[in-house]
Amino acid sequence: MILLDEEKFSENTSVMRLYLEVSHKLHEEKTPHQDITVYETETFGRLMTLNNIPVLTSRNSFIYNEMMAHPILFNHPNPKDVAIVGGGNCGTLKEVLKHDTVKQVMQVESDERVTRVSEKYFPELCEENNDSRATFLFEDVITYMQKVESESLDVIILDTTDPVGQAKYLFQETFYRNCLNALREGGMIVGQSGSPLMTMAILTDICAEMRKADYTEIQTIQFPAATCPSGWWTATMARKGQKFGDFREQMARHKPFDTRYYNADIHKACSAMPQFMQDAY
Amino acid sequence: MILLDEEKFSENTSVMRLYLEVSHKLHEEKTPHQDITVYETETFGRLMTLNNIPVLTSRNSFIYNEMMAHPILFNHPNPKDVAIVGGGNCGTLKEVLKHDTVKQVMQVESDERVTRVSEKYFPELCEENNDSRATFLFEDVITYMQKVESESLDVIILDTTDPVGQAKYLFQETFYRNCLNALREGGMIVGQSGSPLMTMAILTDICAEMRKADYTEIQTIQFPAATCPSGWWTATMARKGQKFGDFREQMARHKPFDTRYYNADIHKACSAMPQFMQDAY
Repeated sequence: MILLDEEKFSENTSVMRLYLEVSHKLHEEKTPHQDITVYETETFGRLMTLNNIPVLTSRNSFIYNEMMAHPILFNHPNPKDVAIVGGGNCGTLKEVLKHDTVKQVMQVESDERVTRVSEKYFPELCEENNDSRATFLFEDVITYMQKVESESLDVIILDTTDPVGQAKYLFQETFYRNCLNALREGGMIVGQSGSPLMTMAILTDICAEMRKADYTEIQTIQFPAATCPSGWWTATMARKGQKFGDFREQMARHKPFDTRYYNADIHKACSAMPQFMQDAY
Repeated sequence: MILLDEEKFSENTSVMRLYLEVSHKLHEEKTPHQDITVYETETFGRLMTLNNIPVLTSRNSFIYNEMMAHPILFNHPNPKDVAIVGGGNCGTLKEVLKHDTVKQVMQVESDERVTRVSEKYFPELCEENNDSRATFLFEDVITYMQKVESESLDVIILDTTDPVGQAKYLFQETFYRNCLNALREGGMIVGQSGSPLMTMAILTDICAEMRKADYTEIQTIQFPAATCPSGWWTATMARKGQKFGDFREQMARHKPFDTRYYNADIHKACSAMPQFMQDAY
């Protein structure tokens, strides 16, 4: 259930609600896929919701975007070909394009309007969208992953909504197996995997489905996410044919670009698992 | 359902509100110090609020309590004498008493009713309150720290409310200097220091006041805190006369007691600072 009035935005996760003060609504539309709304909030900058679920704020989304991109890209020894599944707001794409090793990024989003709305209301996330290495595909992401060439990708980033409705297929063995097929040997996948405090079962389900899909090693990382339920979020990585091994620490420590959350210390720390997660894993 | 207005906690923070579904109110009283209320919530177990600010839930407070106790106690080479300032709900005390090295804990809380209400409604936090090593002092914590014997403590844990009203004195040089005087050489202090995303200025102020009070090294640790603003919280540690050095990793890895969040991996990870915190520190 969503409560919304002229002054406040709230998301009800059945356990807790987040209220952000909204000064006014900037945009509202119903696409064939979903409702897209953009608000100007009092203190979190701009907020984008999809079907009334917050997916992005100007103030805190840098953490999520950086953590979806940099840990996996610095873990891979030489990521050249990357696909981002979902992530139409382009916040993760911007981070991926900071890596010189990356030669091509397929930005695959089913709803083109998300990208167009982001270009208008979150231009800071879209300022690299004209980079010649980026290709935008607006099509069904499940179909894309069925037909993408085998062993053509080094990294796949699943920047998706939560596993409800149609999106649940993006968290299941069949889809993970199509991703595995698309990856080169040693290739890596990462997907957002929810809150350890609120939905630990979703996280363990994701790990189980990835194991069934024959990835060699699985690792969960965590980070703060103020506008998600509990404010604590995870992403789960898996690798094809090899264990993760060391990340490129010296490159991460001396990277030729700026980040606001990610750094080499955070890279080493983000995979430490609290005891109850270790016990459930 | 009640509204817990978390924005009151700081003049600098009027940004987000947390709503928790409440099934009924268990307890309500006005003490000379504050309003104490206990609710039964739908999904976070029991909730205690002080002046309508959530300080404790059955579901998630284990993270805060463990992180206030174990990192500092495993950092200190041999913590024998400990004082907890505030923390009248006894959740942190319970964690401190798990350490065999600890011979005496002074639990100093200005409002005895917090402890009595916790004993009734959060008995799981108070089950070690009869431990002979624990001494309960119900008195003004600032006065306590003025008169406590010099060099009599190894560890001081400041389990306090946020720096508003009278509590602001607990975050200032004079108080930190009294703590320093109470500590033995190599002794350590830790205090909760707010949210990096919401109130970074509070955190840097705490570090500045600790530096003025002549601590030798200062270190901030972080952890999730679902019912605090942004869901992301910190504690800041400082040491008298020495740098922190290594923590007792083997002891932490093979500790003879259970924890749900803390472990040796988390200990190593919790002091990694995001880039914007490093830049502000």
